[in-house]
Amino acid sequence: MLTLFHHPLYASCRFVRLAFGEYGEELALIEEHPWAKRREFLALNPAGTIPVLLAEGDHAIVGATVIAEYVDETRGAFQRNRRLMAEDSLARAEIRRLVDWYLVKTEGDVTRHLVRERALKSQMGGEGGGAPNSAAIRAARANVRQHLKYTNWLAATRDWLAGPRLSYADAAAAAALSVLDYLGEIDWAQYPAARDWYSRMKSRPSFRTLLADRVRGLPPASHYADLDF
Amino acid sequence: MLTLFHHPLYASCRFVRLAFGEYGEELALIEEHPWAKRREFLALNPAGTIPVLLAEGDHAIVGATVIAEYVDETRGAFQRNRRLMAEDSLARAEIRRLVDWYLVKTEGDVTRHLVRERALKSQMGGEGGGAPNSAAIRAARANVRQHLKYTNWLAATRDWLAGPRLSYADAAAAAALSVLDYLGEIDWAQYPAARDWYSRMKSRPSFRTLLADRVRGLPPASHYADLDF
Repeated sequence: MLTLFHHPLYASCRFVRLAFGEYGEELALIEEHPWAKRREFLALNPAGTIPVLLAEGDHAIVGATVIAEYVDETRGAFQRNRRLMAEDSLARAEIRRLVDWYLVKTEGDVTRHLVRERALKSQMGGEGGGAPNSAAIRAARANVRQHLKYTNWLAATRDWLAGPRLSYADAAAAAALSVLDYLGEIDWAQYPAARDWYSRMKSRPSFRTLLADRVRGLPPASHYADLDF
Repeated sequence: MLTLFHHPLYASCRFVRLAFGEYGEELALIEEHPWAKRREFLALNPAGTIPVLLAEGDHAIVGATVIAEYVDETRGAFQRNRRLMAEDSLARAEIRRLVDWYLVKTEGDVTRHLVRERALKSQMGGEGGGAPNSAAIRAARANVRQHLKYTNWLAATRDWLAGPRLSYADAAAAAALSVLDYLGEIDWAQYPAARDWYSRMKSRPSFRTLLADRVRGLPPASHYADLDF
């Protein structure tokens, strides 16, 4: 079994867990707090970021999209219908664009700020903690809607977010939105197509481990683990 | 000829130009100012970011790493010895890790701040311009050293930054450092192995177009285009 250094509220880590889950492969999870700059962890990844996958032979694979490409090359390529990447280069570019959208743009506009202010600061103590910054929370909340509207548009015009088949794009979007949903930041009633798509994602066996995540001192929104929300 | 929407001082755009240059393919360049949020450009890429490649059939390929994978699949894979990606999955993961290092980590720690404060603010006017923030410049300069030290270590212990062959990792590092070098922010004398590696990169035909870049109102450091620096 491979090992993943992760944090339960990092969308990029949830994305990797969903990808392995879709291929029916279990991961050993080690919760890493990147702000602690643990020496043994920096030896694995001098950038100090998560996720890091300890792959075959204990080689460290660093970063969500790098791990996704590795998993596609070593697993996905042999999965036929269940592969999370397309075969065609333009379709692959569209999947990768959306993975970047949710793991970079949504992360920078919304997720990172809400997770830091509402969840991590209380864990961080002397390593960057302190009182939540309400201006940062307000700015991030103002951006949530734009990302939900875009997701709603994708879900309304395509079978899955990047096209006719489930792909890494769905895993990335579900990873990001599941973090926001844990925090109770999504008003699903306003986005019916996104809600229907998220409901399909939530029912997948790969999602179970995410729905069981709990962060100390911060219980999830009441509907977080409900398949009917 | 394909078209690239770019800015001459964005490392991510220089990276794409180097990749095409290595494969001997010329690009039509359109200078895009992402802060202007031009409507026609947002129709191509709703994220509003550069680079964007107009590929065959005018399909928009969005983002440096997405473009790099597309170029590898449609060109690199047929290049044999000149391919900028490895064949082996672990070696590919190492190349991608370093591309992320220079285009994400170096960008966020150093490049983005120095480019914004020293070059873009005077171009931006009412769309985010203003006086340079000297605290941001100081913080970025304090981080330059760490990135040069790491590059020096990689260059001293490997033939090329990711291993025995020239790869996307070298293109990403050279793209990022060439922007900092344009701004005169690198004290090469302190990093002899990095300097030797950069000198090899600078001599490549793919680099010529970068060395000819000029930004209005901000001439490059005097040694910028010298092959002997």
